[in-house]
Amino acid sequence: MGIVVQKYGGSSVADAEGIKRVAQRIVEAKKAGNDVVVVVSAMGDTTDELIDLAEQVSPLPAGRELDMLLTAGERISMALLAMAIGNLGQEARSFTGSQAGVITDGAHGKAKIIDVTPGRIEKALQSGAVAIVAGFQGVSQDTKDITTLGRGGSDTTAVALAAALRADVCEIYSDVDGVFTADPRIVASARKRDRISYEEMLEMAACGAKILHLRCVEYARRYQMPIHVRSSFSQKTGTWIADHEVEVEDMEQAIIAGVAHDRSEAKITVVGVPDKVGEAARIFEALSEAQINLDMIVQNVSAASTNLTDISFTLPRDDGQVAMSALARLKDEVGYDSLLYDDRIGKVSLIGAGMRSHPGVTAKFFAALAAAGVNIEMISTSEIRISVIVDEAQVDDAVSATHTAFELDSDEVEAVVYGGTGR
Amino acid sequence: MGIVVQKYGGSSVADAEGIKRVAQRIVEAKKAGNDVVVVVSAMGDTTDELIDLAEQVSPLPAGRELDMLLTAGERISMALLAMAIGNLGQEARSFTGSQAGVITDGAHGKAKIIDVTPGRIEKALQSGAVAIVAGFQGVSQDTKDITTLGRGGSDTTAVALAAALRADVCEIYSDVDGVFTADPRIVASARKRDRISYEEMLEMAACGAKILHLRCVEYARRYQMPIHVRSSFSQKTGTWIADHEVEVEDMEQAIIAGVAHDRSEAKITVVGVPDKVGEAARIFEALSEAQINLDMIVQNVSAASTNLTDISFTLPRDDGQVAMSALARLKDEVGYDSLLYDDRIGKVSLIGAGMRSHPGVTAKFFAALAAAGVNIEMISTSEIRISVIVDEAQVDDAVSATHTAFELDSDEVEAVVYGGTGR
Repeated sequence: MGIVVQKYGGSSVADAEGIKRVAQRIVEAKKAGNDVVVVVSAMGDTTDELIDLAEQVSPLPAGRELDMLLTAGERISMALLAMAIGNLGQEARSFTGSQAGVITDGAHGKAKIIDVTPGRIEKALQSGAVAIVAGFQGVSQDTKDITTLGRGGSDTTAVALAAALRADVCEIYSDVDGVFTADPRIVASARKRDRISYEEMLEMAACGAKILHLRCVEYARRYQMPIHVRSSFSQKTGTWIADHEVEVEDMEQAIIAGVAHDRSEAKITVVGVPDKVGEAARIFEALSEAQINLDMIVQNVSAASTNLTDISFTLPRDDGQVAMSALARLKDEVGYDSLLYDDRIGKVSLIGAGMRSHPGVTAKFFAALAAAGVNIEMISTSEIRISVIVDEAQVDDAVSATHTAFELDSDEVEAVVYGGTGR
Repeated sequence: MGIVVQKYGGSSVADAEGIKRVAQRIVEAKKAGNDVVVVVSAMGDTTDELIDLAEQVSPLPAGRELDMLLTAGERISMALLAMAIGNLGQEARSFTGSQAGVITDGAHGKAKIIDVTPGRIEKALQSGAVAIVAGFQGVSQDTKDITTLGRGGSDTTAVALAAALRADVCEIYSDVDGVFTADPRIVASARKRDRISYEEMLEMAACGAKILHLRCVEYARRYQMPIHVRSSFSQKTGTWIADHEVEVEDMEQAIIAGVAHDRSEAKITVVGVPDKVGEAARIFEALSEAQINLDMIVQNVSAASTNLTDISFTLPRDDGQVAMSALARLKDEVGYDSLLYDDRIGKVSLIGAGMRSHPGVTAKFFAALAAAGVNIEMISTSEIRISVIVDEAQVDDAVSATHTAFELDSDEVEAVVYGGTGR
């Protein structure tokens, strides 16, 4: 008998019917002989409704109070889920993040987990009860104020609890069957992967695969906690994320884990930057001060005649305005010519641990894009990933062409990425 | 500079506009030089909506989980209120019952306050912030589980916090201007009282005046905490509840504090009970075991010829079914003839500390009722109260006739009772 941690997202508990369906699954897992801990998100649109209320009373609510408000969402879903389980004859007790021992730093809205002390959860399990824990929330170590973990917070809560409880597995339930070789809404022949490594999943998540948040995968890798991504709407096996023992046969076949894409970025180009020491540094310093995370960065070789260069980079679209303002304030100091802003771009990434030992992957990728008439605007690579920035309108074509070129839609390969929620 | 505790009910914070209006009031109280602690109920219909959700997932939810669910309501309103205050440039911090140190027993849904340890509230006040506290909730001493206080819980939270903080006054805000001599919806000429004693207010509350719950007034009397009942929709002075120093002049004028009425009770008559020792006791024992609180009890003298008696009593209508079932099970054992159930009754009560020294009040009361054609079904009295049970359809007439007979609608007297919420 082991410990299973299950996490259900907002779409799985969107209404009373969903809650009852999930309750049934949980009771089955318990009856199968496991100790069961469940992490749950807020019901469907609850969080959006609460944010809407906050906006009605204050244009810039204090972080502490916004966290207090938003944590009401999980409080509602977890209590209802515990009731529904109790109704099936199985005792269940719900716990807030604070009660479950999720200790965080004090960064409201994006708190980081510092420690997990799940004493009350262990006690509940020992007494034979199922423990339901509010995802996305914790309590700050210093001030004892309630905090929220920000994007990917509920998944991270689940993995962190699983690690602290030394669970056998952390099951992440959503409305998707697992990790696919590409978004099935774009590539109909995309396949579900049976398994994927932490490393590949990290790259997938970083490149726009929404099924799991980067930080949750990072946490799982650090604690070597296997994650089973699966659907709460079916009984099918999903995708196991772990450091699988690599068989030689596998390596030969699965060069590529999948194709991910991301339409959430924008591109800024600073035109005519004087090509001397420190100018580029000043630009990135200003963006860093504005708390903006950059993704890809490209600097052209300067034309000898002018001694000016262009610097392009991508960033989350939501940060576009702030970044442009920060750069505009720098115009006189740096002396660049102009700023260009383009939010009609998309990023397409090819990911696979196998590409390390297979030369020619890059060439094949670019050839496939060229054949599909897709123009490449920027390129960035890592050891197990190649990403390109293309016109937003060409993202679907680029994903399909790449998926086909690498024979991902043949019967031999399994599958990667889409859907999911941010919380 | 003193400490003021203000309590706002659900109707005062029903929407964003209400919350902003209340925030303004709070900031005014703070600017006037007070330390301000605010106890707030859930917004308008939130509690009903949450109960509705609970009913959708379970017909009989566990008390622990129902409390966890319902406390989300105050969490939402208090966070929004803190944001709205922050928006006006005044720092405000919200605290759950648990964070505010409201320690209770473990009776979910009807927990009693055991202790109040408001260390975090005092700290917030010392730092210049307004403290917002969730009403209606606490944390159980033994299990550290979240509890709710049941009916009148938010008012009681406010008085308990005021007592623990040694506040100058506990202001209870609702949509009513104060305590009236009768329900203004029935008696248009009813007057607001400027002040009323704890003793009178206790009788008013016990007799159906909904403006303050019995237990809140009891708590205030025990700790001699003055309560100021007033409207959040106007700046008018409301009614002060305290042990006022009685001036002789006052005594002469205000014999009667007001007329209260209650339509929430039902009457049960056990017909033909053998008039021997222990039979009546057996009946009341059974009702007590069923957790039913009786109000008025009347036993007729038995007719000598039959040696049988009738026992009538009133009880909350909501308990009618349970009581009838409990009594039905007793039929063979006690050997009574039959049970009668009447939920078309109303209780009209005349209350006033002055009636202690004024004989003739009862006669005047009954004469007024007779003149209005109101038939009296049952009578009960205390030192400062006379209550009668009448036909439900005659309650309004009885209240008006009594109000006029005691000259409460003349200019000389002030006023008592109505409206308000249960939470």
